[in-house]
Amino acid sequence: MLIAEIISVGTELLLGEITDSNAAFLARELAARGVVLHRKTVVGDNLPRLQEAIHTALSRADLVILGGGLGPTEDDLTREAIAAALNETPAEDPALLAWLEGLYASRGRPMPGVNRKQAWLIPSAEALPNPNGTAPGWFARSGGKFIVALPGPPREMHRMWREQVLPRLPLPDHALHTTTIHTHGIGESNVAELLGDLCLAANPSVATYARRTGVDVRVAASAPGEAEARTLAAPVLEQVRAKLVQWTWGENTDTLAGKLNQMLNGRTLGVIEAGSAGTLCTLLADQPAFLDAAVTVDHRRLITLGLTPVTLRDLGLVSEQAARELAAGAREHLGADIGLAVVVQTTGEHAGQAYAAVDGDGSAHTVAVNWVGDAAQARDRAAVAALALAYRATRLGGQNA
Amino acid sequence: MLIAEIISVGTELLLGEITDSNAAFLARELAARGVVLHRKTVVGDNLPRLQEAIHTALSRADLVILGGGLGPTEDDLTREAIAAALNETPAEDPALLAWLEGLYASRGRPMPGVNRKQAWLIPSAEALPNPNGTAPGWFARSGGKFIVALPGPPREMHRMWREQVLPRLPLPDHALHTTTIHTHGIGESNVAELLGDLCLAANPSVATYARRTGVDVRVAASAPGEAEARTLAAPVLEQVRAKLVQWTWGENTDTLAGKLNQMLNGRTLGVIEAGSAGTLCTLLADQPAFLDAAVTVDHRRLITLGLTPVTLRDLGLVSEQAARELAAGAREHLGADIGLAVVVQTTGEHAGQAYAAVDGDGSAHTVAVNWVGDAAQARDRAAVAALALAYRATRLGGQNA
Repeated sequence: MLIAEIISVGTELLLGEITDSNAAFLARELAARGVVLHRKTVVGDNLPRLQEAIHTALSRADLVILGGGLGPTEDDLTREAIAAALNETPAEDPALLAWLEGLYASRGRPMPGVNRKQAWLIPSAEALPNPNGTAPGWFARSGGKFIVALPGPPREMHRMWREQVLPRLPLPDHALHTTTIHTHGIGESNVAELLGDLCLAANPSVATYARRTGVDVRVAASAPGEAEARTLAAPVLEQVRAKLVQWTWGENTDTLAGKLNQMLNGRTLGVIEAGSAGTLCTLLADQPAFLDAAVTVDHRRLITLGLTPVTLRDLGLVSEQAARELAAGAREHLGADIGLAVVVQTTGEHAGQAYAAVDGDGSAHTVAVNWVGDAAQARDRAAVAALALAYRATRLGGQNA
Repeated sequence: MLIAEIISVGTELLLGEITDSNAAFLARELAARGVVLHRKTVVGDNLPRLQEAIHTALSRADLVILGGGLGPTEDDLTREAIAAALNETPAEDPALLAWLEGLYASRGRPMPGVNRKQAWLIPSAEALPNPNGTAPGWFARSGGKFIVALPGPPREMHRMWREQVLPRLPLPDHALHTTTIHTHGIGESNVAELLGDLCLAANPSVATYARRTGVDVRVAASAPGEAEARTLAAPVLEQVRAKLVQWTWGENTDTLAGKLNQMLNGRTLGVIEAGSAGTLCTLLADQPAFLDAAVTVDHRRLITLGLTPVTLRDLGLVSEQAARELAAGAREHLGADIGLAVVVQTTGEHAGQAYAAVDGDGSAHTVAVNWVGDAAQARDRAAVAALALAYRATRLGGQNA
């Protein structure tokens, strides 16, 4: 059994200026792979305390993972502290230095002198490439133990963990087979009621999570081998799928926008966002079906896009009828096969109220959203509801055809 | 000077199921009161490890704050661990027991037997009332040190911290004055080089942070009173401001979009996003100046918005000239006073390349962005660069007028 400790480095963490989301990510990753995490520690940018923390963690654990402190400035001390804890001396690695200088050259800028220490290595460490930043990580082996140092920015850290660290670790022979079912349009407690006793078992376990895109249900089975874990999970997974089929839009790495794109099957999507401020567009980023969007709350502009002055006067912009007219407008005025519109109230008494409509294939569908929350949450829920509506409508359309 | 350590208790934290927001809250509270936090530790529901963590923390710090583990179940072990670390034996406190039983009686329910341990005390501890839950806290004094135990639920913890713990602590007579300066368009290591020795001083301290919107510089001064802290910070703050004026867009709670809105001073902004998929719109959400946006990478549609076919053919969509034409188009075709356009390459060899342009007041400005990263990062950096460009251009325009 592999025992791990995590050390997060940074005075800003001790000042409470940022929350340590990296440590939670690593904790989940370790748990999923059967590595037992005994302790997480946060230490500031202080060499003696950091060195002591590494030293103590190494005396207790087989694997010590450090996050942060790999930047170029004087308070980035993780390299120095690991070197000191292992009693080694860092030296500039020519290959790393050339890579760093190339990175700056490709941007047409000279490398600042302070960045040279990002090319340091110690004898027991190898460098972990960082495709999203300038700070390489370290993977060190010493006395049968492993010390991993990763940069703090989550985007850099997550990728390096998956691509560089996991393949180097002697992970226990333990397989966890997990399937995550994504739903939308049903609350977490209703999902839990539907699943009933399935949620009480330990292996396979069934757990619900409220996510931005709806409720996720995770079915996890643990066994010595992958095939056994899969077999163990299968009957429970089938039951869960059957109970939730009506609300399910995908599984595992599916995204709602990706599933919608797939359903559209070559047809194009035009979008009008009135109040959601581009949130729906960001969800549709990189989907080939996404043709064109107008993002505005300006009444004159919305009228040129299909909103009738009568609806605006009698029902207001945040109404089902306005969403319906704008969905038709998104199809006609933006030259798309399918029109999708969302209208959102982000301020005042009715903040959180929203409508989405989809128009195409000779039919229209609408959905109402009403949720307590701040403006960003209101925009987000409305945009997700619009995507889910379009997915459901195009899936129905496909079944009818 | 009071040195503190925080110990968060709970296996769910080590499994990454929840993020430790309590520790960040306490960290901010301590920093604001001049208590120096040296370490945060997370330990699972394991008596020997928790006891050892308390013991070690007491050997280093004057104040040890524990969060969590005060519930009634068998894996709530914080009371047991404190008692063991201080070598004392817990006993039921009659007053606490009566209060607990009364709490249940008032809800018309009998108190479950397991809850009796929430009425425990040790000789060196007094109970801290919990108005929002069943778990009283502990405040213990031992060998000139303080041990505080608070329940995990934030709503319970925050209130008990403020009402019960703070009045009992011998807090230093102390104020922290901080100012954060927001910059864009200069790298963190270049900022550090510019600031030079200013970053080495301890009080006022000057620290740099790489954020989504550019590099932030935080100047913090600590003194017995607020006025003294402000006076101490002033000369350093003036030096930092002077050195960074060229890149600075705001301070403290300013947002880049808010500052741009202010500079626009009633003029409207039209936006075209080609490749950034609504990211720029989301940043402009709720700004009155933001009139209308088109979000598309469709060539035909972009040509109707002002992109010339010649530019598209000879230079491509992701070119300075295309951005310039689309900024003029955003002004003309969307009926705005100022046009802002961004073109971004999110895939292929030149992923991360982007141009932004702003057009209005009879002048146009452009900026090029080139950064290694994934598609989401490319969109984000380009959108932020476009906002910063528009802010700088309108500020310049204002100075010329």
